[in-house]
Amino acid sequence: MDAAEFRRRGKEMVDHVADYLEKIEERPVYPDVEPGYLRSLIPTEAPVEPDSYEDIMKDVERVIMPGITHWHSPNFFAYFPAASSYPAMLADMLCSAIGCIGFSWAASPACTELETVMLDWLGKMLQLPECFLAGTHGHGGGVIQGTASEATLVSLLAARCKAIRRVQLLDPKKSEAEILSKLVAYTSEQFCATLGTTPSCAFDHIADLGPLCNQENMWMHIDAAYAGSAFICPEFRPLLNGVEYADSFNFNPHKWMLINFDCSAMWVKKRTDIIGAFKMEPLYLKHENQESGLVTDYRHWQIPLGRRFRSLKMWFVFRMYGLQGLQAHIRKQVGLAKEFESLVRADKRFEICAPVVMGLVCFRLKGTNELNQSLLKKITKSREIHLVPCQLSGSFVLRLAICSRSTEFRHIQQAWQHITQLAFELLQEHHH
Amino acid sequence: MDAAEFRRRGKEMVDHVADYLEKIEERPVYPDVEPGYLRSLIPTEAPVEPDSYEDIMKDVERVIMPGITHWHSPNFFAYFPAASSYPAMLADMLCSAIGCIGFSWAASPACTELETVMLDWLGKMLQLPECFLAGTHGHGGGVIQGTASEATLVSLLAARCKAIRRVQLLDPKKSEAEILSKLVAYTSEQFCATLGTTPSCAFDHIADLGPLCNQENMWMHIDAAYAGSAFICPEFRPLLNGVEYADSFNFNPHKWMLINFDCSAMWVKKRTDIIGAFKMEPLYLKHENQESGLVTDYRHWQIPLGRRFRSLKMWFVFRMYGLQGLQAHIRKQVGLAKEFESLVRADKRFEICAPVVMGLVCFRLKGTNELNQSLLKKITKSREIHLVPCQLSGSFVLRLAICSRSTEFRHIQQAWQHITQLAFELLQEHHH
Repeated sequence: MDAAEFRRRGKEMVDHVADYLEKIEERPVYPDVEPGYLRSLIPTEAPVEPDSYEDIMKDVERVIMPGITHWHSPNFFAYFPAASSYPAMLADMLCSAIGCIGFSWAASPACTELETVMLDWLGKMLQLPECFLAGTHGHGGGVIQGTASEATLVSLLAARCKAIRRVQLLDPKKSEAEILSKLVAYTSEQFCATLGTTPSCAFDHIADLGPLCNQENMWMHIDAAYAGSAFICPEFRPLLNGVEYADSFNFNPHKWMLINFDCSAMWVKKRTDIIGAFKMEPLYLKHENQESGLVTDYRHWQIPLGRRFRSLKMWFVFRMYGLQGLQAHIRKQVGLAKEFESLVRADKRFEICAPVVMGLVCFRLKGTNELNQSLLKKITKSREIHLVPCQLSGSFVLRLAICSRSTEFRHIQQAWQHITQLAFELLQEHHH
Repeated sequence: MDAAEFRRRGKEMVDHVADYLEKIEERPVYPDVEPGYLRSLIPTEAPVEPDSYEDIMKDVERVIMPGITHWHSPNFFAYFPAASSYPAMLADMLCSAIGCIGFSWAASPACTELETVMLDWLGKMLQLPECFLAGTHGHGGGVIQGTASEATLVSLLAARCKAIRRVQLLDPKKSEAEILSKLVAYTSEQFCATLGTTPSCAFDHIADLGPLCNQENMWMHIDAAYAGSAFICPEFRPLLNGVEYADSFNFNPHKWMLINFDCSAMWVKKRTDIIGAFKMEPLYLKHENQESGLVTDYRHWQIPLGRRFRSLKMWFVFRMYGLQGLQAHIRKQVGLAKEFESLVRADKRFEICAPVVMGLVCFRLKGTNELNQSLLKKITKSREIHLVPCQLSGSFVLRLAICSRSTEFRHIQQAWQHITQLAFELLQEHHH
């Protein structure tokens, strides 16, 4: 495929993408396929000669679409949102074209520098303490990780490395293995200090935990993977109070800030803590400018060596929406969750199982876990909306998360109507 | 931005991308900026109200492009190639639109199933032993990791987990920490058994190492990050002989197989080895089908939880190029490296420093390391071509890697002319 054909096919693909997203509501949100469905639909080997582009696009509809769970359907309420917006998609097209692998400053200075500044922009939106920002007199800074799991792993390894060095400084004879066997990581039910857990969007009291960690010289990592995006709204920012005690903090703009996966934002108070744990310097990655000490080589901040130009999509989204647009998105989705909460509370057969703080509603039919499992099975089978459950203090609970950018109040109403209809049928069956 | 505006801006972006790649040769391959150049060019905070799209695109040229190292310029010969092709970019546009997070089969069955089958297709192209493939009676299978570093880390953790369990089975009283302190990982100069190292594209003798590892019950991981793509050509396949002894194998189609970053292909002989080390099962990720034991939940195969629909770009590239097209790409680039090797060998002032097997030529001026460092400084400063050095047995060596899909013989000739011109000037200076 040459540039001329790409111009043609690319424009067709733009329309294909727009069509898909405009008409997504017409598709069943959850697929009706059995495990292994796909293998029999395509050849067992790659073709020796090229296939035609038309055939490939036909196969997208024939082979792929029947097996898609449509995360951006307004009827998708499962897990947590996967962010998606047109500005982010445009930026990703540009990112693919530039195609640099930004493991060092020299590998594409713009890739590293835009990331550092975007993490400062975002940190300011969240009103993070200055010590986490790079463009200050502090020693902190931000980095884009792929996922919150990676951010947590990086924090854990940095904390471990720092603790081992501290012990070895006092007692140089101690082996690393000996020290390791004594190290303890304290976690909540979800690991580390969490703002907005996955099952119920619960919040740890970081303003209480923080001083304790600091006193005891323990690394404090805060994970606000989902809820973090909401802290750009002044009314939610108090939930982040206490972040000043943390050594590292991260959340996922790829969940709730309209920036397509992957984009997990992480900040550390001391850049040297994280760089010290991961530094590697083969000659082929050295460049003149690093000797000045002025540059950031992000490969020292992460597990992988390679990295895409992900800050482009932050830049496009921040600028195309503006802070106000992003705040409006968060407020709208929290509002929809509150609307759904009201609907549930108005029905005496149901109960709300956790405070509705963000865009997640945990609810259940009053009664046994089996009853609620049956309800969820009916919902899943009908394929009109998609939910997943969680377990809260032994109870089987249904989670409705406001996910898609295109979810409106009418979808919430329809979802509730659908759920109550299925609940009615279920209770009738049990009655007989 | 609504769908209508995306249709317009998306098509403009397609042209922008095609223009960029068609005219990339006109840009200096290496940027002329100082560390920190970008911060002063943009505001210190995100805008409160949206910026216009036109302003953003103007800023791409004003702010971003001056700081780009153009990895897809035909004059880029640094590091190793970062794969890029139009079919992969089209697939990535579709991937962005679908935007599913495929951590489990249920999260989008097509995402998981296409990946499994594409890894089988690719495994067959490489003539991997059947035991590594999923669609067989064996216990193996493939997965896409982000990078080779992640594949290596996953192998290491799986090997560690397996070794600890084996020791604890014999001696249940031994603690994990005690066992850990005794475990040893053997590596070559580059870690693990490597086919095609980064400095010089050297090959370990895996057919010798393999039986030893198997006898001693050691996990053998083979990393062929760069060179692996070449094994689809029968003439290079013998270099992979011995892979049958390995427990895990990986290489990066995102380096040399026209599939844009990130896409690192990894296979294991026993799926249970890797799943056992990483399994996590909260209720909100459970789904009915997993109980059948028929489905793959790829979150158990990797460090992150989330994952993009990366197999789409494999599918598009394999089908649009066909096996023959991919082989032709490899052969062309190896051919260009051989051409460059001939040019170097014909000049008595230079020497070749390692066998040229793939698309990498290691060479230097006969003489001191300082002389070669000066030559590289001149090359970097001129910004006409871009190379990085390596260290081979104490010698400072220049690496010329054939990287861009658009590199032709004339670029090789021009690069050599440029290098010899700079070498001539340098030797003149030394003479005086």
